[in-house]
Order: sequence, then structure tokens, then C-alpha cells
Amino acid sequence: MPLQTPESFADVLIIGAGPAGLMCANALAAAGGIEVRIIDQRPSKISVGHADGLHPRTIEVLQSYGLAERMLREGSRMYMCSFYNPSHTGGIEFTTRVPDVTVPTARFPFKIALHQGAIEDAFLDSMAQHNLKVDRPVKPLAIELSQDQEQLHSLSSYPIKVTLARLDAATDAEKLEVVHAKYVVGADGAHSWVRKAFGVTMDGDQTNYVWGVVDMVPDTDFPDIRHRAAIHSTNGSLMIIPRESEKVRLYVQLSGEDFVDPGTGRVSKSKSSPEKILEVARKTLHPFHISPLSDIEWWTIYMIGQRVASKFSVEDRVFIAGDACHTHSPKAGQGMNASMNDTHNLAWKITQVLRGWANPSILRTYESERRKYAQDLIDFDKRYAALFSGKARTSADQDGISHDEFFKAYKTASGFTSGMGIHYGPSMIVNAKHQCCAENLVVGQRMIPQIFVRAADARPMEIHDLLPADTLFKILIFLGSANEESRLAEINALANELSSPTSFLQRYSADGQPSASVFDLITIVAGNKENFNYLSIPQVFRPHWSKVLLDDTDVTGKVGGDGYKMLGISSESVTFVIVRPDGYIGMVAPVAALQDVHEYFASFLLPCHGSSSL
Amino acid sequence: MPLQTPESFADVLIIGAGPAGLMCANALAAAGGIEVRIIDQRPSKISVGHADGLHPRTIEVLQSYGLAERMLREGSRMYMCSFYNPSHTGGIEFTTRVPDVTVPTARFPFKIALHQGAIEDAFLDSMAQHNLKVDRPVKPLAIELSQDQEQLHSLSSYPIKVTLARLDAATDAEKLEVVHAKYVVGADGAHSWVRKAFGVTMDGDQTNYVWGVVDMVPDTDFPDIRHRAAIHSTNGSLMIIPRESEKVRLYVQLSGEDFVDPGTGRVSKSKSSPEKILEVARKTLHPFHISPLSDIEWWTIYMIGQRVASKFSVEDRVFIAGDACHTHSPKAGQGMNASMNDTHNLAWKITQVLRGWANPSILRTYESERRKYAQDLIDFDKRYAALFSGKARTSADQDGISHDEFFKAYKTASGFTSGMGIHYGPSMIVNAKHQCCAENLVVGQRMIPQIFVRAADARPMEIHDLLPADTLFKILIFLGSANEESRLAEINALANELSSPTSFLQRYSADGQPSASVFDLITIVAGNKENFNYLSIPQVFRPHWSKVLLDDTDVTGKVGGDGYKMLGISSESVTFVIVRPDGYIGMVAPVAALQDVHEYFASFLLPCHGSSSL
Repeated sequence: MPLQTPESFADVLIIGAGPAGLMCANALAAAGGIEVRIIDQRPSKISVGHADGLHPRTIEVLQSYGLAERMLREGSRMYMCSFYNPSHTGGIEFTTRVPDVTVPTARFPFKIALHQGAIEDAFLDSMAQHNLKVDRPVKPLAIELSQDQEQLHSLSSYPIKVTLARLDAATDAEKLEVVHAKYVVGADGAHSWVRKAFGVTMDGDQTNYVWGVVDMVPDTDFPDIRHRAAIHSTNGSLMIIPRESEKVRLYVQLSGEDFVDPGTGRVSKSKSSPEKILEVARKTLHPFHISPLSDIEWWTIYMIGQRVASKFSVEDRVFIAGDACHTHSPKAGQGMNASMNDTHNLAWKITQVLRGWANPSILRTYESERRKYAQDLIDFDKRYAALFSGKARTSADQDGISHDEFFKAYKTASGFTSGMGIHYGPSMIVNAKHQCCAENLVVGQRMIPQIFVRAADARPMEIHDLLPADTLFKILIFLGSANEESRLAEINALANELSSPTSFLQRYSADGQPSASVFDLITIVAGNKENFNYLSIPQVFRPHWSKVLLDDTDVTGKVGGDGYKMLGISSESVTFVIVRPDGYIGMVAPVAALQDVHEYFASFLLPCHGSSSL
Repeated sequence: MPLQTPESFADVLIIGAGPAGLMCANALAAAGGIEVRIIDQRPSKISVGHADGLHPRTIEVLQSYGLAERMLREGSRMYMCSFYNPSHTGGIEFTTRVPDVTVPTARFPFKIALHQGAIEDAFLDSMAQHNLKVDRPVKPLAIELSQDQEQLHSLSSYPIKVTLARLDAATDAEKLEVVHAKYVVGADGAHSWVRKAFGVTMDGDQTNYVWGVVDMVPDTDFPDIRHRAAIHSTNGSLMIIPRESEKVRLYVQLSGEDFVDPGTGRVSKSKSSPEKILEVARKTLHPFHISPLSDIEWWTIYMIGQRVASKFSVEDRVFIAGDACHTHSPKAGQGMNASMNDTHNLAWKITQVLRGWANPSILRTYESERRKYAQDLIDFDKRYAALFSGKARTSADQDGISHDEFFKAYKTASGFTSGMGIHYGPSMIVNAKHQCCAENLVVGQRMIPQIFVRAADARPMEIHDLLPADTLFKILIFLGSANEESRLAEINALANELSSPTSFLQRYSADGQPSASVFDLITIVAGNKENFNYLSIPQVFRPHWSKVLLDDTDVTGKVGGDGYKMLGISSESVTFVIVRPDGYIGMVAPVAALQDVHEYFASFLLPCHGSSSL
């Protein structure tokens, strides 16, 4: 008699424990109260090689989960990028060295190189604190999404049935299990099983650029070995990424015919070796020498593919994320970043829906926001990869790509390569109607960093640190100056309005108080630390002493200040800045448009969240 | 037949595991290769109350041991100090609010409040990584220092015999043990057993100022409850120290007659209670109200004593440190800071002597440096405590102390209250002969912070972070600009000289290379990150790629730069700045005085350290 297949239930089942899956799992586990399950078919996590770059926006996002500290401590930082080009005497020569991150609002004006395993460790350790582990080696065998509309629209139903197989290493036997899930996230890589199971196609092409990658500790006289360096030579291109400890990674352009299997048209690892890749690198770097001081830690070769999945979601119940829905060239350092930012975008939405706070329709914005971004990224990548993989112009070959051409592309690419350019278009959660009341903030982009001084204790606080990824919308109330009598009347009137039961602050809150459960409120006053008394503003603006900030410098006079000016906000009236749980600006509004703020939240929040299943 | 008393040997036996003892134990354990033993008679460490203030210099010192991060995360920070004085209508009123730390070079422009137990935990955790634990409850019964001059002068001898008793909690029996030690550090508090055992007297007086202390979570409408606040009222003085979490500490001036036992002349805890102290506090704070929101976490009363031990060392084999050699008022936040800085000063000296690097005569500088500091501190404390404990001037009482008088003292006290004023006078390890070649550095004071940019990777580096308390002297070579041809000749000549076997760099180094074992070398070039090639300077100046810094801003243009100007060093010649292992400047010298640098080190370093017992 066969044993019954065990069955279990999960709010969210995540398939794949790479960066996209781990970001999702950690965010849901940290949110609390959600039954999360994460599986991976690899028996253990990777420990060397693979993706290794964190761009500045991703560092900000990791910081919002309390996970950046470790990356900042362990990783190698790239502040500048050096350029080398063909010299007149043969070989290459130094051309210029410029800042790698040119977006002025970057909180972290550098990129971090750190192997993927270390980044995954940070997530795994954080998940462990929330009692969540990756279940491995477990692979999915079958997935079935109910077609019953009632089930699909009921928050209490588990419309997805997934059959899993656990591999027993000792006996090689597979143990089956059935999981019933409310939501499934397929973060299972470029060859995504989830994507294929639902017949989602990948749109786009393979290029014919072939690249090799080697990780090693180098012995070299190349002066920019600790900078990111982009090298164009007559022998092909090469990029250097300085890594943690003494390591570097080389991306080496290879000539396709030597490394591609003519039968399959695919790169063939068996036709290659780290020695062959290094041989090309040595020629490209001439007259500088380079050789490994130790064993090659990791290596690979690849052909650049540039593809986006035709859809990112099935019925807003099954989502795909990360490499499962976009592939592009690794040298612009986007792969892992785009992947983690996919699920960063998704996790809070699933959480708010599961809690009964938000209407399930907000889940549609996952595809509209992230697929648009992925398409833009691929378009950018096509231009960038073509320039970087193209032939270098020399005095002998005037048809090649000039340094000026590449450099121009490099500079305009900064929004993408830093991640700061992510801009979500108008939707139920992005309302740019009153954009003009905060001129230097862009609705749909991430809140920009700014240091304010806490009124009660004069401690300088980076506003980003007050916008943690804790599933709450942040209501920043820029109260303006609170000195003149006329302003006080306006401020008191607003306090009364916000305290009324019809105000959004009260309407979406269980206990009738501006509670911390749905919103986090921060008040920013144009005042100074020497004489402002934070007890002088109405109670509704200061749910706790730590929530009142001043637009002033710190005691040294060197940190903070000019915040209203930097953000382009008037200090003569009240302005609302609504920051989504993922750090993106959902709306800005002047006090006169308070009704629009009410309507913004009314369009997707559910007034009574007592009915939630959580 | 009685059992034989067990005997053991230790390089250093530390008696007392308060802040002074723990700083010493951790420093010696981290140094490595030293047999350290630390005992304490309390059965467990304290967990609430007691000392709680870290001044900015102590934070820098903790940072040099890698221990500041936790204090910065867990502690409450005091950026400003508020002053309240008698109002014309009775009660008190706000007078002014000013920065608490006014020394412009403070790296951490604030003080930290955190209970002593948390600070001790940081040491205990760090010690555990070096396999050192506090042995407790163990108390010393007898100590004997050999009078044999040969033994006293031999590094291989153990001239101190200490008899210890371990209390067995179960049986109440004492188990004896004899420890033979090379050095003993008595960090056993104000009633020091070690001090008394050697008949060392305390010079100074008891005041008649009586103060009460309460730690609690307050309910109050006092606007400066999260600032350090100094309150003078007609009812006495009061100081508020905001603490970690929501707690505050109140220091409340009490009228002596109510709390002093007339028989002993000492304060009597039995005559007092937290309620009585709070009753006084409430009157002092009128018209503001204050009451505890929770139980009183800790409380005490004390009379201020201001005393310094007549000597800090016996034969440079037994040292006393911390409260054992100085007591003063707690409100200037000096006690724990002075204590930790005592053993911070001592530990590297003992380490270098034990390793055979330095002549034992450097141990004499412990007393000369720290006793002088303690005396200055007491002198300052007498003036400060008298002002703070004195009567406040009011319109009715013109004889009291005015706000202006107190405020002036407060401002001039900043060197002491921040710890930045610590200035060690000339000695074998402090040589101010060439002071003029680095105008804004003070030989004998701590190296001032400055951000430089690392040449190889353009990463901004705070020079303090390159001066860890790792027992090594740091040789900072300010090479000046390296652009002109004429400078290169000078730089190459210096490189040859430093590479010669008679150079101090080679002379005190076991392997004939500028090794990391006795010195750490950092080269600072007046160059810019866009085009400087760190491989262009001679090898002796760059033992590792990370050791070459540039005096330039970081990529944002907002951090670093102007270092030569800030330190008052010329960029047209070479200047040496020698930083002691404890972060204090031992010497500055122009390249022309290289011979004086040789002589400085020759005066206390031992050329051959192969003969060490370690």
C-alpha cells in the first residue's frame, strides 16, 4: 500500500534560493505573520564566483532591510572607473579615470564587488533570525493554478497546488510532497521551470559576443588593478573588477569562433579553460603583465543574451522574478541587482494583500513596474554591450569605436548602472499629479537621501534610515517653519483634520489612533536645533519624540541642512511626501490637495482590515 | 595532610574586572602571545547603573580596538547641552542650548550614554574571541614583590607572588592558589586592595556636596529630556543624562544634612530612597513635571571626593589604574573614561616590554603621563563641581553663581570633558623638538582625524581607522607632492636611506624588510586620484597597495581633502609623523632631521628582539 503524499499549506511558496528568491523570502519573513516556504534544488548554496556586483541603489535597498553593513564591511568598493585604449606604440595606455557613480544623490557613491555567496549569506542569516531556512535539495515536479474565479479572488483560498520532490542524498530516492499555496514566486533562474510550466515565452535575441570570466589573485604591474577598468585594445576588450581581499575578476572578450560549438551555436565550456582566457587577457593588457598568484578561484564563459519574459505574472497568483524573466550582459553589473529589486518590489505588495491592508489589484503593478524596467534595461544593455564588445578605434582602424563614443555612453548610462534611474510610471500606487510641489523629488523614483537633525536630541539622521523596508507607507509631513503665528493656525487646522475619523491616518488604522500599524509618520520642521521645542507642535505630528526632525545642520555645521531646498519643497506651507514601503515616492501633495491624498490611499487600501486572514 | 596549594604563572595578572581592568585585559589578549589572567571578586558582572558616559576621545580609543561600533549602535548620544536657570516668576526656565562637544577635531562630536554593563560586555565578547575570561569570584589575599634587584630587572623572572582565594558558592569554602606574575595591574576600584597592600596613599579631600542618582523611564513635559541638561535652581542643581532606550538618568543635588550620617560623616544609603531623591528633583524642575513611568532601574547617593594616588606604580612591576588611583565627581562624565584611558596607556607598553621590543624604562611613562593627567583632572573637577554644586544666582540672591560664570567654565572645560585635552609631556616617548613642522598637530596629544583617499582604489579612509591599537608604532610619511623632477630626487634619496640596514625601519625589524612586526608605515602623497599612479613611488613607501594615501577629496568632492593644510604640514618636503600605539603623537620631524627619528627610537627600542621570552 503506497504511503499517502503529505500535504501542507503556505501563504507564499518561493521556488529558487538565488538573490531574487532570498530577497523575497527574507522580506516576507521579516514582515512577520506570513507562512513562507522557500525551496531550492541545489543541495547547498554557491560559495564562489557567479554574480558579484552591487550597485548603489541595491546597497540602499539592502540598507533598508538592515543588511548593507556586512556588504560594506566585506566587499571591495569601486569608486572610480579607469579607461585604457590602444596606444600609438602598440598595446594599451591609460586614457582617463573618472567617478564610477555620477548620480549626485547616491547615498553610497560606489559599487561593491563581493561574491554572490557572501550576499546570499547575509539573507540566510537574517532569515534564520525569523526562523526561515531554505528547504533543499527540493525540486518542483508539477504546478497547477485553479481556474475557479471564486478561488482566484478569495484571500482565504490556496489556489495553487505544487508537487515537490525531495532528494534523499543517502538513498537517491525522491520523497513527494504537495504544497497548497496562496502565492508562488518563481525565482528559479534563466532556465526557469515555473516560467516554462506556464508557457511564458522569452522575447529577444542572443548576441554573438563571447566573454570569459576568471576570478584570481593577480601579480601585475597594471596601475589600475584596484579600480574598475574598461580596456579597449586591438585584441578585444577587457574589464577588471577588483574583488574582496586581494582578488580581481577579469571579463575577457574572446573571439567567438574559438569557443563556440558550431553544431549547437552555443559556447562550449569544454573548448575553453582559464588558461586560454588568461592567454587572451595577457595579449589585451600588453604592455602590462598579469598572471595569477594563486589558483583560479572560479571561471566561466558565456554569450550575451538579451531577453525579457512576455509576462511576469499568471493571474497575479504566480509571479516570476530575477533571471527567470530577464537576461542581459553581466558587465554593466545589472543581473543580480535587477533580480533583487524585482522581489523587493513584489514582497511588500504580497504582504499588504495577505494582511488585508491592500486590494489584491496592487499586485498588477509588479508586472507593470518591473517588466517596463527590464525592457528599458535590455534596450540600454544592447547599446552598451555593442559598444563595449565592438572593435576599438586606432590610428590604423578609423572604423572602430572611439573612446569618446564609449565614454559618452558610459556617462549617460549612469542612471542604469547605478540603479538610481529606476522610475515607475503612473499607476494606482504612483500619482504624479502634484509633482510640482517637490521640485527635486521625482514621483515614481526612490526618495533621495538627506540628513535632518532630530529635534529632541539634535542627532543627525539620514532620512533613508527612517524609511526601512518594514511594509509600512511612510508619511513625511514637511510642516514648514513653525515660527510665525499665521503658520500655527494652518498647522493646528491640519492637525484637527488629520485627527478626524475620516482622515486617511485614522481610516486605515485599527485602533483609531495614528498607529504604527499601517503608516509611519515623520514630521520635518524648518527650524533650528538651538531653540525649537518639539513639544510645541500638535500631538498628531509627534507620535514619538524621535519622529520630529529639523531641517538644520548637526552640531559641527558640516552635516545636513538645506533639506527643503535640496528637495525643492517650500517652507511656507505644508507638503506631504508619501514614500512606499520599498522606498519609492508614491505621491507628493500640497496641504491644499489633502483630499487627493485621501483618494490616493482609498484607491488601493482597504478601510477595514479586521477581515484579513492574518 | 593538607593539599599543596596550586601554583601557576602569568605574564600579567589583572585584579579587578571593571572598565580599567577589562580595557587592559582585552588589549593584552588582542596583542597576542601574552599569558594574561584577570580576576574579580564579584560573582557576576554588573548589569545596571554605575558609570554610563563615554566621552568623544574614549569612543575614538574604543574604535581603535574595533569596539566602538556596538556603543554607537546601542548608546544614546548627547550632541547638545541645555541650560536652565531660575526664572523671574519662580521655578526654572530655558536659557540656552549649545553643542556639548566644542573641540573642532572631535571625530565623534557627541558623548554616549550607555550603562556600564553594556560597555563591559563589549570587552568581554572581544576577550572571549581571544580565549580570555574573567576568573570569578576570586579575591587576592596576599601580594609580595621580590626585593631582589636582579629579579626585578630580569624579563624572564616572575618577581610578584600573589595568593588568591576562589570562593566556592556551594560550600562557601575558599580554595587557595598562588600566581607568580611578571606584572600585576591593580584595577580594583576606589577601595583598591592592591593600593592598600603597598601602602600607597590617596592625596586630596572629600567635598561636602551630596548627590543622588536615579535611572528611570520618565513621564515629563520637560522639553530637553533627550538632551544633556544642566539645571540650576534655587532648590539646588540637577543634571539630566538621556540614556539608551527611553531611559534617563537624573543627578540630583541633595542637601547634605538630610542624607549624611552625622556619626561617620559619610552619606548613608539607609537615610535615602529613590522616592526622596525624586521628591527633590520634582521641586528643582518646577514648573515642569516629572515622574517615573516604570520602576526605578538603579539609584545611589554619593559625596564627591577628589583624590589622586601618590604613586601609580611600585618598581614598574605593580601598577594601579582607574578608580584605584583617582576619584572625582561623576557629572563631568570622567570616571570611567579616565579609568579606561589609564590602561589603554599602559597595555601597549607592557606588551612591547614583554616582547623584548622596548626597554622596560618606558613603563615609567605610565605614571608620569597618567598621574599628571589625573591631577589636572582633579583640579578641573574641583572648580567645575564647586560651580555646579554652588547656589544659583537669582534676582533675589546676587551672591549665587551666575549662568555666565558656569557657562564660561563649561566651555573652557571642553578639552577635559571631551577627553581631547589629554596632553602627555616630553619623555623618552614624546619628543616635541620639531613641533613646528606640523603646526596643527600637537606632539603628546592624540593624532587628529583626517580623511585621505587611498591611491589604489580612491576609497576615502579616515586616518584614525589606519591607526588601530595593535601595539605597533605608525610611521606616517608625508611625502609631499611627487610631481616635479626635483622632488623625485629627494624622494628616491630618502627611499635609499630608509632601506639601508642602519635605518630605524630596518634596525628594529626581524627580517630585514620594512616588516609589519614593529612598525606600520603609511605614505601620504599630495596628489590627486584622477591621475596619480601609486606604483610610481619607491617600493619602501608602499609595503602594500593599501598603504599609499592621497590628500584629495573623494569622488563626491565633499569628503576629505586639504589634509596637509589641516595638519599644518608642507607639501614641498617630506615630514614624518610618528604615532604611538595608543594613538598619541610621539614625534614629528622634517626629513632633514631623520637622524633625530633614529635617535628617538634608539632611546627606547631594543635593536635585537630575538632575545625576547615571547
